Amino acid sequence: MPRTLCTEVPAAVGQSVRVAGWVHRLRKLGSLVFLQLRDRTGMIQVVLEGDIAATPLSHEDVVEVTGHVAAEPRAVGGAEVRAESLTILAHADLLPFEINRKDIRAGLDVQLDHRVLALRHPKPHAALQVQAELIEGFREFLSGRGFTEIHTPKLVSTGTEGGSEVFEVKYFERKAYLAQSPQFYKQMMVGSGFEQVFEVGPVYRAEEHNTSRHLNEYVSLDIEMGFIRGEEELMDLETEMLQSMFGRVAERRSEALALHGAVAPEFTEIPRVPLAEAQEILQRRFRKASPPGNLDPEGEQLICQYIGGPELVFLTRYPLSKRPMYAMPAPESPELSASFDLLFRGLEVTTGGQRIHDYRMLVNSMEGRGLNPADFESYLEVFRLGMPPHGGFAIGAERLTARLLGLANVREASAFPRDRTRVSP
Amino acid sequence: MPRTLCTEVPAAVGQSVRVAGWVHRLRKLGSLVFLQLRDRTGMIQVVLEGDIAATPLSHEDVVEVTGHVAAEPRAVGGAEVRAESLTILAHADLLPFEINRKDIRAGLDVQLDHRVLALRHPKPHAALQVQAELIEGFREFLSGRGFTEIHTPKLVSTGTEGGSEVFEVKYFERKAYLAQSPQFYKQMMVGSGFEQVFEVGPVYRAEEHNTSRHLNEYVSLDIEMGFIRGEEELMDLETEMLQSMFGRVAERRSEALALHGAVAPEFTEIPRVPLAEAQEILQRRFRKASPPGNLDPEGEQLICQYIGGPELVFLTRYPLSKRPMYAMPAPESPELSASFDLLFRGLEVTTGGQRIHDYRMLVNSMEGRGLNPADFESYLEVFRLGMPPHGGFAIGAERLTARLLGLANVREASAFPRDRTRVSP
Repeated sequence: MPRTLCTEVPAAVGQSVRVAGWVHRLRKLGSLVFLQLRDRTGMIQVVLEGDIAATPLSHEDVVEVTGHVAAEPRAVGGAEVRAESLTILAHADLLPFEINRKDIRAGLDVQLDHRVLALRHPKPHAALQVQAELIEGFREFLSGRGFTEIHTPKLVSTGTEGGSEVFEVKYFERKAYLAQSPQFYKQMMVGSGFEQVFEVGPVYRAEEHNTSRHLNEYVSLDIEMGFIRGEEELMDLETEMLQSMFGRVAERRSEALALHGAVAPEFTEIPRVPLAEAQEILQRRFRKASPPGNLDPEGEQLICQYIGGPELVFLTRYPLSKRPMYAMPAPESPELSASFDLLFRGLEVTTGGQRIHDYRMLVNSMEGRGLNPADFESYLEVFRLGMPPHGGFAIGAERLTARLLGLANVREASAFPRDRTRVSP
Repeated sequence: MPRTLCTEVPAAVGQSVRVAGWVHRLRKLGSLVFLQLRDRTGMIQVVLEGDIAATPLSHEDVVEVTGHVAAEPRAVGGAEVRAESLTILAHADLLPFEINRKDIRAGLDVQLDHRVLALRHPKPHAALQVQAELIEGFREFLSGRGFTEIHTPKLVSTGTEGGSEVFEVKYFERKAYLAQSPQFYKQMMVGSGFEQVFEVGPVYRAEEHNTSRHLNEYVSLDIEMGFIRGEEELMDLETEMLQSMFGRVAERRSEALALHGAVAPEFTEIPRVPLAEAQEILQRRFRKASPPGNLDPEGEQLICQYIGGPELVFLTRYPLSKRPMYAMPAPESPELSASFDLLFRGLEVTTGGQRIHDYRMLVNSMEGRGLNPADFESYLEVFRLGMPPHGGFAIGAERLTARLLGLANVREASAFPRDRTRVSP
């Protein structure tokens, strides 16, 4: 008999089924045992009686049950399985915490220590489902626009931007590093004739700080696009893409959103505010001073609060000196850059912009920042071989998911987070 | 005026268009210059005359042209663009090799040194397009079967199988390693209630040998599936999945396949041959001896030749001692394993099998191999929390692509390959 999934049981009233999953909850009522069975699709009530009711069972045991499906208005889904046989496929030891309550009663660190168990609870489970849906939405939208998915190496010979926050790898006789982003490679792939590329892959930041917003390994959703006329096109693209991604999640993962009390934002456009203007607004409306050429975390929250509505805002025209060496200067001022950040509910989730495509200009930019172009030879070659105007952006998958669901800590949006002190499980 | 892509030009006869791309070829004929323009979709002929024909141009310059589309039976696609204006967006220096010939006339190492240029040539370009299509086919098939895409960490605290072929990373005050496979994490995600998961991500093998079949970083297409009854189900799944993936490529990338003279295999089933039987066949038919519990590369080629037809063969029942500690013993013999390899046109592209799901049995297996279960604590926990019977397999994306297209070296199926001596570009 093929397996019937929990959510398929109510459609099988009057039939025999085989169900399998974890023992989510047990309740004894006289000679009957009510077993709430959980599988990847949801839960169903299983009634055990007679000899079967005497089977010693614990929460999270893995069982297989065959039985008859009966209508039962008091059960979730309006049906239950009356067990005719039960097999224990695997036993569970005593659990470090219960997962059959509305919320897990354990601190985040304990939950992360026993991540596999925590992920069985409907809420953390839903968070990763939403993330998978967002990522699939990302790909679907871009494939529809003629983008090609790429896979670029994470083992690289130099740090992406020459910074120090890079992990070192022993690569046979030499040193290599873990890529801080696929920045150079996605640009190179634009110049290799693919023109429009995206990548979903891990990136590595050897940052010392341990905050609720940072991970040392995270999933970056990267885009790079050739033949653009300016960074406005990139913001247009990201606006439409997020509409599509959020729309997909709202449609396909409504239960998961509801479980987190979350609503996907709906909008027709995302405001674009020059950074200097945002800093003025913060000063004028909130008496809030900002660091030069940026907002601090409180400033990011306040400006989102001020903007209201779509809960998203592009900040544009960052000072060129605050952006990487490949950032394109703004057409109207060599002090400003044709770049942007996207804030979502008070947190930066995207950095993007137009890049320099002229070889000479890029070399000058490197030298002006004290970088040695010889260290970037394999990146620079494409700029001597005909590189179209281009730009792109990157979205942190965990931050996007965390903001969408209102998760307090970005670690909750990672299957197995890596931070300053955690490399396990 | 919005940009028209090269392949869209023939549909615009009689209209004005703006096209942009790389100068693939230049031919002077009297006062006219015929420019073959290449963009991500293909090529189109552009005719320059008068002042425009005098523009100094080189191969691989990036240009934008506006002009009128005229029917021209002698041009590819039956149309050409008669230029009214031409702008050079970026110049190209002298090229290390030409890419407008049928094949690139440079050795593979030189091509890889200038990978960005090589990838502009239609053949290498087509190889990565086919790979992207295979991977999208992999996802599409599995999503349709209720699998969830996961993203697991590549920074891990121990080598997956306790082996020595692992890259070491300096992780703040301690050591970490690059994951040799998502094996442990995909199993843990099955046990975390997702039941059926897949991952597309990089894996790392610190192997010393430098062959045409090996990469030190490659893209692994990983699957893991709970509530199976045996490894036969996994081979059923992989058979259907490959049918679907190959079918998709044949349908959507017929030009790319044709460019490589490749045909996607069509089959209704893939033969399953126990390893011992395969070794006997090799001995009997080819007088070919095999190493204990395995085939060597020549043996892999000969057995595929012997099988013929589908060009694919599952080898089953490897000795348990030759498989990892998590491999499930075969039901009929504790010396054999419920595992398999898949050979495709003479090369192993998949390893898979059922895994041990019983905690005690897994600990015994570790101890029997001289491994210390304490070193695997974070992996072992899920086996004490209710782990269903499960199994899975992994496909090397570059090997699959290389075999499909008949590429001589697996490096040709990687955007930026990493090997014993290469970490750049």
